[in-house]
Amino acid sequence: MQNQFEGKELKKVGIGIIGLGTVGEGVWGILNRKKEELLLRSGIEIEIIKVCDINRKKKNSLKIPSQIFTDLWEEVVEDKRIGIIVELIGGLHPAKEIILSAIKKDKYIVTANKALLSEYGNEIWSEGRIFFEASVMSGVPVLKSIKEGLIANRIEKILGIINGTANYILTKMEEGKTYETALKEAQRKGFAEADPALDVEGTDSAHKLSVLSYLSFGSWVSPKDILVEGITSLTPEDLRYAKELGYTIKLLAIGKRDKNSIELRVHPTLLPLSHPLSNVKEEFNALLIKGDEVGEITFGGKGAGSYPTASAIVSDIIESAKSFVKREKFSRSISASPYSLKVVSPSELVLPYYLRFNALDEPGVLSSISGILGKKGISIEQVSQKGRKKKGAVPIVMMTHEAKEKSIKEAIKEIDKLPFIKKKTLLLRVENF
Amino acid sequence: MQNQFEGKELKKVGIGIIGLGTVGEGVWGILNRKKEELLLRSGIEIEIIKVCDINRKKKNSLKIPSQIFTDLWEEVVEDKRIGIIVELIGGLHPAKEIILSAIKKDKYIVTANKALLSEYGNEIWSEGRIFFEASVMSGVPVLKSIKEGLIANRIEKILGIINGTANYILTKMEEGKTYETALKEAQRKGFAEADPALDVEGTDSAHKLSVLSYLSFGSWVSPKDILVEGITSLTPEDLRYAKELGYTIKLLAIGKRDKNSIELRVHPTLLPLSHPLSNVKEEFNALLIKGDEVGEITFGGKGAGSYPTASAIVSDIIESAKSFVKREKFSRSISASPYSLKVVSPSELVLPYYLRFNALDEPGVLSSISGILGKKGISIEQVSQKGRKKKGAVPIVMMTHEAKEKSIKEAIKEIDKLPFIKKKTLLLRVENF
Repeated sequence: MQNQFEGKELKKVGIGIIGLGTVGEGVWGILNRKKEELLLRSGIEIEIIKVCDINRKKKNSLKIPSQIFTDLWEEVVEDKRIGIIVELIGGLHPAKEIILSAIKKDKYIVTANKALLSEYGNEIWSEGRIFFEASVMSGVPVLKSIKEGLIANRIEKILGIINGTANYILTKMEEGKTYETALKEAQRKGFAEADPALDVEGTDSAHKLSVLSYLSFGSWVSPKDILVEGITSLTPEDLRYAKELGYTIKLLAIGKRDKNSIELRVHPTLLPLSHPLSNVKEEFNALLIKGDEVGEITFGGKGAGSYPTASAIVSDIIESAKSFVKREKFSRSISASPYSLKVVSPSELVLPYYLRFNALDEPGVLSSISGILGKKGISIEQVSQKGRKKKGAVPIVMMTHEAKEKSIKEAIKEIDKLPFIKKKTLLLRVENF
Repeated sequence: MQNQFEGKELKKVGIGIIGLGTVGEGVWGILNRKKEELLLRSGIEIEIIKVCDINRKKKNSLKIPSQIFTDLWEEVVEDKRIGIIVELIGGLHPAKEIILSAIKKDKYIVTANKALLSEYGNEIWSEGRIFFEASVMSGVPVLKSIKEGLIANRIEKILGIINGTANYILTKMEEGKTYETALKEAQRKGFAEADPALDVEGTDSAHKLSVLSYLSFGSWVSPKDILVEGITSLTPEDLRYAKELGYTIKLLAIGKRDKNSIELRVHPTLLPLSHPLSNVKEEFNALLIKGDEVGEITFGGKGAGSYPTASAIVSDIIESAKSFVKREKFSRSISASPYSLKVVSPSELVLPYYLRFNALDEPGVLSSISGILGKKGISIEQVSQKGRKKKGAVPIVMMTHEAKEKSIKEAIKEIDKLPFIKKKTLLLRVENF
């Protein structure tokens, strides 16, 4: 498998690609277009041994030679000439079966499948030999940066806008559009799926946060243990009120580490307008990482798309091929932490909050609300009633000082029972610097 | 040199640190404080065999054991137990001698010395085995990202705010301070050296651009072949006029690649206020990279400081130690380009320009100026005279459409000879999206 290339050993590595959706097409395209450049830069020749998709039409549309095309993934995993399996079908099954059987056959894996990684990370990661840069922020090399570039740091905080669909919708709502109109626009532009639930309900961000947490804090946390709230209860008015208070609202994935505990949560968050992440608009993604040595650093770029994602997959193919030729075992403890970390339960959070009450415009309303809050030890930073109405309810918007989430939740439960409260109170969390 | 560690081979690598300035102190600190964490994450134990500084007082102030301290760099380079030399003295000599003699002894090098790399890159890089992440943007892992994370990309553009001193001064000038006041403030805060020439005249940015260019475009360009202009001719008024036109002014390092040519330049640049780099304030650095697959991605963070820089140095120590234990030769062609690229001469540039004339407030002035520009084929996008004066000169600010730099320079030469022009005309280049 070796010959000479510019005085160096030339190494050839066989790969199999499973899944030819938008990302798979991009990977097939780059590997063919850039064979020479990739060889020059890495000294490794990537040979595509098998390409697999259940849709046989892809063979012709992508001009894949018949002898390397198959619609059976088992054929790819069992091929002895293949050292690296590139899994690009997404979803949990049969992606999990593909990956586990490839690991059993001592193959290396490249994948962008954050749902699978976050769900079965414990099983999969312990086996090593899996490369997944494309799973978070597609082509922006954040995972490699955490793992290698920031190896001298204890990561203290990660804040990410890591779902482009949700960010696009929030940007449009900031311009005054309703959630429904903004979603339709995102779907028309191809930034949102027909079923946007994974994106707008925060699940996709939670999957990615689970991956980020593994690398940053050294421990796998199931997405079930992550606090997840989506953006579907927001109105364009909330974005307007937030702006009046000096904030924007972003769907943030937040990871924070204290000495022996970590906080992991995904929710719409009020972020000061002067915060480095508040200018991230439309479908763009960004990640802020705070390391104890390096301070705060940021990464930005498109978080999705055929070629940006394929860019990361190809980088991982080269990376895994370098390990493969040395039969290196990718070390699990690369991100290990010498501490065992406890996940903080949401009820233990202590944060400032934004509350939007919906109450009749009557004397005594504010005094009742603030009375209940005061009883729970919650102090108010600012409050304003938005408009006046003889009949019907008006929004009352409030910012609290730091308070216990448990107390806030109890107070809201009590407040929502008051006769002049006409709708469930909206609670949003605030992230200052 | 090997024993068992959590079931894996434990590898021990001896290093020598030369230079205990702010960065050296940071490296010494991290390696001692984080021995256990680094071992866990990398499986490699870094053993500090020698530490060297010409100032012997450092031994006591940093509590360095006598038996590992020396004030002779030759002792470090000659020590057979040392596999990696960490050069942190800066400047050209004896840093060059240290690095070349270490290479001869088959040692690996870690350095942050951009002046040396850009000046002698041709000699040093061809030897391989040199790691220099800290040389650009300190702890923000941009070089690793270009080299590895973006390996699937042909880099088309790099735009960087990579000198914190200059950016701090420009931020203060934007607030209305003069250059001199802003510089003094930067010096007081420790963001500028007593002699700020390297920073404010663009030399430091050019050194870093030379390093970035080597990795992004695959060819070493001497800083002599980079167009370099500093920020010392700017006034707070220029920043105000730029803002009125919808721009900010940043000292940018710019690298652009066309098929067979590259443009490399460092100069104060008008950047649209909505550009992702225009919000980078004070001492912060940022880099935008455009790859043909990934699109535009950005990196941000502090570009200097003891611990941020030490963070990158320690990451390079681990990285080089991984190579060292395998006796790997760091491949020069990692960033090679299959094309041989020609550096575009400044006179061939075609850009929009900002011009500030200083002219007497008389009838006919604008017609003379625009006449000369018209004759050279330069068309004006916008022009305004700032204020009126019976006696003395007033600024006339002009934005041109795209024009040839050669023609603009010839026109200015002619205009500056007109009797009503009272000062040398200021020319700034504009970078749109």
